[in-house]
Amino acid sequence: MDYKKHIALVEDWPKEGVQFKDITPLMDNGPAYKKAVDEIVMYAKERDVDIVVGPEARGFIVGCPVSYALEIGFAPVRKEGKLPRDVIKVDYGLEYGKDVLTIHKDAIKPGQRVLITDDLLATGGTIEATIKLVEELGGEVVGCAFLIELDYLNGRDKLEGYDVLTLMHYE
Amino acid sequence: MDYKKHIALVEDWPKEGVQFKDITPLMDNGPAYKKAVDEIVMYAKERDVDIVVGPEARGFIVGCPVSYALEIGFAPVRKEGKLPRDVIKVDYGLEYGKDVLTIHKDAIKPGQRVLITDDLLATGGTIEATIKLVEELGGEVVGCAFLIELDYLNGRDKLEGYDVLTLMHYE
Repeated sequence: MDYKKHIALVEDWPKEGVQFKDITPLMDNGPAYKKAVDEIVMYAKERDVDIVVGPEARGFIVGCPVSYALEIGFAPVRKEGKLPRDVIKVDYGLEYGKDVLTIHKDAIKPGQRVLITDDLLATGGTIEATIKLVEELGGEVVGCAFLIELDYLNGRDKLEGYDVLTLMHYE
Repeated sequence: MDYKKHIALVEDWPKEGVQFKDITPLMDNGPAYKKAVDEIVMYAKERDVDIVVGPEARGFIVGCPVSYALEIGFAPVRKEGKLPRDVIKVDYGLEYGKDVLTIHKDAIKPGQRVLITDDLLATGGTIEATIKLVEELGGEVVGCAFLIELDYLNGRDKLEGYDVLTLMHYE
């Protein structure tokens, strides 16, 4: 499927000189959204995934239907102050600034095979931070799945040694 | 299914005197998460829903798998400044303060039958605001589905005339 026809390219957002890739038209189209998720479901099946982990909020949009389809759990990674119970934290740099990500300490059991999902692989900062959280809890990251990869930001360099699936590339 | 055994009750969060209902243990449990979503999928089928709308971020956790299962679209409602294209806005009061919600102008086509999803019906402020956005775009709200309803906050009063499904009640 040509997913790119369902991506809106938004100039100068969130700041001047950046062309934002907006996935909301894809999600708005039921068959396109389902097909994209199903590709990630197949990828997860091949890797015998136990649990899906995604950073807020667009990581939920990609990962929650994958969890549902495989009848496995979903563990949210959120900004500081959003998760109500005991968490571990990691500082991270992202494309447009710095922030802190957290995960509940009981979200992942040691040895679980984890798929990480997000909408976009840009500089890779968010995913690198998410991997750190998962591994600190003893999870094994067996795959990372994205709808979009911005090849020119070289996010994949941060994911060396990890298996990566992306459905769309922008050069 | 006794979903409540998968809800963590967190005292004094996000502020003193509030007992927060944390859905993350339910999401962490694949079969429980799937069963909860499937109840909402059945509800949506009965109402011939065209598109699911959910406020960030926990509305995505509930609504995105429903969209996937029915092969229909999902339209995110987000805080101001998060959606990159033309939006409409609404001010709303929520349990712990005030805020602005937005939706893309092209997210819903006039006449579409809309299911609104969120994790929690508390005072109803978020859902009332979401309904306003949907109706301003010409959508018909044919149902609202929540995992949890806090009966003592009377959020249902704000939803008079709308059909509501909740899987768990707290009195």
